Amino acid sequence: MVRDWMLKEIPELKIHGRTTECLEPLTLFWTASGFECNVSGTELSVEVEVTYDIYEPWFSYTVNGDWIGRQMLPAGRYWVPLFRGMSADKVKNVRFYKDLQAMSGDGNSYIHIHALRCDGQFYPVAQKAVKLEFIGDSITSGEGLFGAKQEEDWIPMFFSALKSYTYLTADMLDAEYRVFSQSGWGVCNSWDNDPDCAVPKYYREICSLMPGEKNERLGGNRPNDFSSWQPDYVIANLGTNDAGSFDQPEWTDEASGRRHKMHKNDDGSYCAEDVEFFRDSVKKFLHTLRECNPAAHIIWCCGMLGTSLQLPICRAVDEYSSETGDHKVSYLQLPDTDDTNVGSRSHPGALCHRQAAEVLSKYIKTLM
Amino acid sequence: MVRDWMLKEIPELKIHGRTTECLEPLTLFWTASGFECNVSGTELSVEVEVTYDIYEPWFSYTVNGDWIGRQMLPAGRYWVPLFRGMSADKVKNVRFYKDLQAMSGDGNSYIHIHALRCDGQFYPVAQKAVKLEFIGDSITSGEGLFGAKQEEDWIPMFFSALKSYTYLTADMLDAEYRVFSQSGWGVCNSWDNDPDCAVPKYYREICSLMPGEKNERLGGNRPNDFSSWQPDYVIANLGTNDAGSFDQPEWTDEASGRRHKMHKNDDGSYCAEDVEFFRDSVKKFLHTLRECNPAAHIIWCCGMLGTSLQLPICRAVDEYSSETGDHKVSYLQLPDTDDTNVGSRSHPGALCHRQAAEVLSKYIKTLM
Amino acid sequence: MVRDWMLKEIPELKIHGRTTECLEPLTLFWTASGFECNVSGTELSVEVEVTYDIYEPWFSYTVNGDWIGRQMLPAGRYWVPLFRGMSADKVKNVRFYKDLQAMSGDGNSYIHIHALRCDGQFYPVAQKAVKLEFIGDSITSGEGLFGAKQEEDWIPMFFSALKSYTYLTADMLDAEYRVFSQSGWGVCNSWDNDPDCAVPKYYREICSLMPGEKNERLGGNRPNDFSSWQPDYVIANLGTNDAGSFDQPEWTDEASGRRHKMHKNDDGSYCAEDVEFFRDSVKKFLHTLRECNPAAHIIWCCGMLGTSLQLPICRAVDEYSSETGDHKVSYLQLPDTDDTNVGSRSHPGALCHRQAAEVLSKYIKTLM
Amino acid sequence: MVRDWMLKEIPELKIHGRTTECLEPLTLFWTASGFECNVSGTELSVEVEVTYDIYEPWFSYTVNGDWIGRQMLPAGRYWVPLFRGMSADKVKNVRFYKDLQAMSGDGNSYIHIHALRCDGQFYPVAQKAVKLEFIGDSITSGEGLFGAKQEEDWIPMFFSALKSYTYLTADMLDAEYRVFSQSGWGVCNSWDNDPDCAVPKYYREICSLMPGEKNERLGGNRPNDFSSWQPDYVIANLGTNDAGSFDQPEWTDEASGRRHKMHKNDDGSYCAEDVEFFRDSVKKFLHTLRECNPAAHIIWCCGMLGTSLQLPICRAVDEYSSETGDHKVSYLQLPDTDDTNVGSRSHPGALCHRQAAEVLSKYIKTLM
Repeated sequence: MVRDWMLKEIPELKIHGRTTECLEPLTLFWTASGFECNVSGTELSVEVEVTYDIYEPWFSYTVNGDWIGRQMLPAGRYWVPLFRGMSADKVKNVRFYKDLQAMSGDGNSYIHIHALRCDGQFYPVAQKAVKLEFIGDSITSGEGLFGAKQEEDWIPMFFSALKSYTYLTADMLDAEYRVFSQSGWGVCNSWDNDPDCAVPKYYREICSLMPGEKNERLGGNRPNDFSSWQPDYVIANLGTNDAGSFDQPEWTDEASGRRHKMHKNDDGSYCAEDVEFFRDSVKKFLHTLRECNPAAHIIWCCGMLGTSLQLPICRAVDEYSSETGDHKVSYLQLPDTDDTNVGSRSHPGALCHRQAAEVLSKYIKTLM
Repeated sequence: MVRDWMLKEIPELKIHGRTTECLEPLTLFWTASGFECNVSGTELSVEVEVTYDIYEPWFSYTVNGDWIGRQMLPAGRYWVPLFRGMSADKVKNVRFYKDLQAMSGDGNSYIHIHALRCDGQFYPVAQKAVKLEFIGDSITSGEGLFGAKQEEDWIPMFFSALKSYTYLTADMLDAEYRVFSQSGWGVCNSWDNDPDCAVPKYYREICSLMPGEKNERLGGNRPNDFSSWQPDYVIANLGTNDAGSFDQPEWTDEASGRRHKMHKNDDGSYCAEDVEFFRDSVKKFLHTLRECNPAAHIIWCCGMLGTSLQLPICRAVDEYSSETGDHKVSYLQLPDTDDTNVGSRSHPGALCHRQAAEVLSKYIKTLM
Repeated sequence: MVRDWMLKEIPELKIHGRTTECLEPLTLFWTASGFECNVSGTELSVEVEVTYDIYEPWFSYTVNGDWIGRQMLPAGRYWVPLFRGMSADKVKNVRFYKDLQAMSGDGNSYIHIHALRCDGQFYPVAQKAVKLEFIGDSITSGEGLFGAKQEEDWIPMFFSALKSYTYLTADMLDAEYRVFSQSGWGVCNSWDNDPDCAVPKYYREICSLMPGEKNERLGGNRPNDFSSWQPDYVIANLGTNDAGSFDQPEWTDEASGRRHKMHKNDDGSYCAEDVEFFRDSVKKFLHTLRECNPAAHIIWCCGMLGTSLQLPICRAVDEYSSETGDHKVSYLQLPDTDDTNVGSRSHPGALCHRQAAEVLSKYIKTLM
Repeated sequence: MVRDWMLKEIPELKIHGRTTECLEPLTLFWTASGFECNVSGTELSVEVEVTYDIYEPWFSYTVNGDWIGRQMLPAGRYWVPLFRGMSADKVKNVRFYKDLQAMSGDGNSYIHIHALRCDGQFYPVAQKAVKLEFIGDSITSGEGLFGAKQEEDWIPMFFSALKSYTYLTADMLDAEYRVFSQSGWGVCNSWDNDPDCAVPKYYREICSLMPGEKNERLGGNRPNDFSSWQPDYVIANLGTNDAGSFDQPEWTDEASGRRHKMHKNDDGSYCAEDVEFFRDSVKKFLHTLRECNPAAHIIWCCGMLGTSLQLPICRAVDEYSSETGDHKVSYLQLPDTDDTNVGSRSHPGALCHRQAAEVLSKYIKTLM
């Protein structure tokens, strides 16, 4: 018999991704956030409430680990069917993934989950042995993983959780994972030199890069409770936008007059002071990551869109390690994008993400 | 400015798959049937009307050739958004695919397309140089291409148009294609010896294997107008269910008392008379295919689920060719399913379909 | 202490390939014929005696299954070092392969093995569970597996035992194997219509296609003792040269006036009578194969250089099977050569042979 | 007509690898050193003179770019046939490769080339547009590229020039290349802490790591004339043995009492002072490389056997670059060895070398 379940009525439900404790409704902030359930019965639907001003969210879902569907979520509150016609007695594993990153450019872009509808029972979801946290930029947000190569629009449709190296790495390691990422952002500043668009500045809160009063109300600006979820491996894939900002004009905040820019020398090389500023920012972020994740192995990665700041990153990691005696930190180079593996918007494509996941999961296995 | 377009208002629209001339609404019968348009503007939605008693339809779609979404279609008449936020001036190619075969077991399972909604203009769709028609069983219907390996439910969710060797072959050849297929059916009879479930019996009509009065009303039982669409290559991938029926009990029609069975000898080999009946059926179907498609090259395929009846098929093809002097007919063996490439429901998986598409497209190129 | 061993002093030695019982010296006739030994000690050499008028033989060898060396063998009697400096106590498996087919065009082209020199002991070679016999033409002789794509010379240097689908299939199945093949020959006649160059005519003798008095003396013309080595699978990969002969001029034996040719009709199709002659030849050869190998499963293959006579082959196999009730015979299509996998002399390259071995070994596993 | 040519009679001959100007005979020191010629005629042989006390040399050769043969070279002076029976008029490109590194443990291990024998003419060898120099250890010497996985003997048979990432990278870039490498050696010391076994100490001479009076006589200890051959890219793949030496006992020179060791801290991490010593050694070697190769781009690589000293290497490269303003230096991580790509002696296998060559050649293309 089909009935509706409020989320709080389902203690077996597993929530993925950084969020608040609220279940009426559950708010999804980040890429790959969502819920997971083990459920019997012939059919399952989910009641979503979707809001946005500019950037509509998309979602994907798996049944027993196999990707079944992906669709745009128009604004409104409504039911979405996930499966029907299945054998009633068998327990199915269902995982709902937000395909879109937290959109710092649209303070109204959210998916809320209100309820599930099914004719079966819920069962506990098995705990994974390994936990991963991915921190990054557009690459980690899966930008460019949907869409033909010639696409240039910066739209939600072209972001993907499931084709990403984050999903694939977790899958190869049979791990649970979270994603903390923002397209265009870096360690020091964004691709266009905005120093407020630096990922480390927002790491301690649940999702404080979402702007506005609504995020305040939803609890995104509250401190993240790190004790509730401790990753075994933190993968920081940052530096690509910092590198790009050396080629971009100065950023100016018209209101305050604040200015910022990463400079190049006349010979085209990076200005030493700015590289030092970058190195210091990497080191500071390593201190933050260690403070928040005392037992995790921290892996800094780069390379999927070139290795411009690889040497300063490695030096920062080495100096941090020497200075602190913290040896649970390392560096890994990931496969580069080229003609054979590029996706849309000149970003790494599905093949590049798969190659990266293979390198990364193989590397993590050597650390286990 | 967003407006709604009745299909008949869009002469540039291209219809794929066997169907009637009716556009109010357009009825989709077969796997991979649907529509294709070139359209400018920032957004596009489609108005569908979906009916079913047991088997709900699913659809997938591509934008500029890249797979964007896939979802279940609940019963009702409603709008489904396909894209939004794209550059207004660029012309986008959009292709809508029915993911589910014509379901002969549910006389009410249809997708109807009523209208499109967009803020741009429609442009002509370029004609492809090559046309393919695929005729087959569950393999050609893409059964087992979604779902985890352990899945056993026979449900629409596990059928796929886009992961199939049919889509992939057409893509590799830059060809237009149609699919005429029914899960469980064969040349002589179905997997369980039902002689009415023989694909050749229904080839001359638009979609006469759909039962009931509704199909009559929709025009599915009308003769197909072969002159309106002539394939360059007809691929008949049939024989797997005929082979299976030798191991199944006799079929009996309780009403009429009709009976039918393909027999095995005591030593486990196929009974010679039944094999001869099978060979004759292959030859008869070749005559039908030639009659309907005078200029096409006909390729009979088998092998994706074993090659049990390969020799009788080849002999039938050779005899047909010798007897008629028709040399535009040949045989091609396709890659077999094994542990490495199997999908759900013990059917060929995505990798097997890709391997088959590579073999088939490579072979067709040698015929060009 | 290094000493020389006559072959007859080494009962543990395993001889591969059809040959006589003579060990003083051992004569190697066919592709992939040679010897295999398990030996301790630090070094091993082999004493060969090589003769030829036109076509010098080459050999390859493996140590513990890994390909170590390949070299031309000049005429003369001399020692060739195979390994040195290895751990004395470990037992090494060494396999010597003739890389060149029996050259019917040079009655003096032979490798003889006289002795081995080592400082260790010989140990028994483990018996393989499966035995394969490959029968074929240039494809099975590994022609075109060495040499750059542009090479056109028909010389021994471009033949290979170890890159061939025969070696690879045996390796994938952990099988012992023999090769019976001749470049340019077919079931009915050679590529240029010579009816004496038909492989079946020579199948019952050890190596009767080598011409001249020397072969008589060496015993190549003696009946093969089939009881001494019975394959589990016979793979007949023949028909490619028969297909080619339809496009070649008539063959005439100036001495006797004998003539022969396979004809085409005016429309480019094969002449029905000649195809029937071909089919009969296939059937006759199947009878021969069955007589010589009562328990083997016989697999007729084609496809690595096109499938021109595939239908007549299949029909012949089907008719043979129907007429005799012999069901241990089947047909398998192998992957075709194209731009991506071609070798030298427009023959299948190493990749094509690997693809063929994968298809063939996978198929044989389904028969086990 | 066949005749013998002294090397000095063949101005068209191209010599590969660091060596002296002597051609009577030509001495081959390093891996992949040898000669290359364009020659017409039907046959070609080479007269070698081979010496060794412990480690016999091996060679491989290509004809028109395709690997044709590989064999052990016993001691003595004799002719080795390379091809015969080829079309007389066509010009063939032949390249002879020493498969074995300079063996610092055997002062008598050399290949000398005296003469060529052929019935054709010699023609100039086209100049390649790009030149590469590889500097490294056993990985760069191709150790472990021949032999079954279980092999543990450290013998010449298991070294390979042609399966190595050096050959493959040059091939992918259509480049000329040289190899300067020694198994077991590092930047600071060997795998067992011998500070004399440091590659940088020998870089300025032709081949000064070969011991003894014979090398003196052959000219191996003379300064290398860097002006005669300037690489466009220097690839330094060093650091693996330095990492290993932290786990090995102290090295002691019994005669002088000299001692050396890289130490670990009690917690298993590397001792800071020793890491600093390593970093300084990397920086010093970068200065040397730049001095000898003023215009080359220098790429330091590591990773094919783990990345233990990657961070110190990167920091050294970054510091060198910052301190000197030399920006034509960078770092590249290469694919690691694992179960799927390992060769013999627990070294990277052919697949790992191919993967490394793909990463490296792709990277070099981004620098062009």
